[in-house]
Amino acid sequence: MNNKGIIVVVSGFSGAGKGTLMKELLSRYDNYALSISATTRNPRPGEENGREYFFVTKDEFEKLIAEDGLVEYANYVGNYYGTPKKFVQEKLDQGKDVILEIEIQGALQIKKKFPQALLLFVMPPSVEELEKRLRGRGTETDEVIHGRLLRAKEEGQGIDEYDNIVINDNLDDCVKEMHEIIQSSHYTPERNREFIDTIKKQLSELN
Amino acid sequence: MNNKGIIVVVSGFSGAGKGTLMKELLSRYDNYALSISATTRNPRPGEENGREYFFVTKDEFEKLIAEDGLVEYANYVGNYYGTPKKFVQEKLDQGKDVILEIEIQGALQIKKKFPQALLLFVMPPSVEELEKRLRGRGTETDEVIHGRLLRAKEEGQGIDEYDNIVINDNLDDCVKEMHEIIQSSHYTPERNREFIDTIKKQLSELN
Repeated sequence: MNNKGIIVVVSGFSGAGKGTLMKELLSRYDNYALSISATTRNPRPGEENGREYFFVTKDEFEKLIAEDGLVEYANYVGNYYGTPKKFVQEKLDQGKDVILEIEIQGALQIKKKFPQALLLFVMPPSVEELEKRLRGRGTETDEVIHGRLLRAKEEGQGIDEYDNIVINDNLDDCVKEMHEIIQSSHYTPERNREFIDTIKKQLSELN
Repeated sequence: MNNKGIIVVVSGFSGAGKGTLMKELLSRYDNYALSISATTRNPRPGEENGREYFFVTKDEFEKLIAEDGLVEYANYVGNYYGTPKKFVQEKLDQGKDVILEIEIQGALQIKKKFPQALLLFVMPPSVEELEKRLRGRGTETDEVIHGRLLRAKEEGQGIDEYDNIVINDNLDDCVKEMHEIIQSSHYTPERNREFIDTIKKQLSELN
């Protein structure tokens, strides 16, 4: 069968716990690699180059674009964000499944370039829980809540483009479920083209 | 999320061990129900009505066809074989995943009627192993081997129509893997339409 890694895009509602989920997934299983994005925005206090992001200049970023060195990129409020191709390819070749935490626009770029990428969308277990998370602890201003709400509406539009949803109820169960979804998705005919073609060829030669 | 069962069609090369796999799957997990086909062929020694098959008359079978009481059916060498709809629907409503062991023609009928059905194709781990199984223990006549070979070639044509392949190497691992593939497939946007639409609707009402 196919021993090569697959690209796994993880998106989802803000506050659905993507960060914690992925941290846990990576610490629990050794077949994953987390892709680190490059960005032209300035590091925030506590952020480290090569950990949260690769912090690069605008020129460096545009050089990457020109060289087709990114699997996806976008420009948000004047800053570039993108996924360097080299790291992703290296890890896939090592048989790792490469996790990319990106939003819908990037996810769709990935799916177009890599039809075998797996797109996961993390959801809260219920509308009540989502609303609770959106409203926060009741200490947020109406403006903050409104901003979150607009964002969630936008994020929710793209769900149907994803291959699977991941429901983050209990963290422990959810990490296991996410792992199983990713591992199961290795077993599609498209992701095992070589194996299937070999079997078919050999069958046609037998007599 | 979606608590309703899904239809799981299992096909695969003869000798890939489908029977053993499914027996093990059903004994190990309690969320599955095995669909029993109806047939107009005569019971063979040791076969029991309602265990291997429901043995019915040609008239009874044609009545089922006329009433749209079958999820799929076919006619092989003068005998009807089909899957009664009533049992499948009852088990789905109880939240069971219903397993149907049928061949490609039936599988495609199912997929057309039930786009949310999951189609699994059981494969041996290697071409060597497949050939070994096709050739048997060296005691079979050339005719028997030739017959198996023709059948395997035919069976192999349809692989790409399936959602997932299941590689039967080690029985224990394979059963676990099959279970994970089936359970993971519950988490697609299409199989959670209601949950997703509720979330979207609620989001649009929040303000």
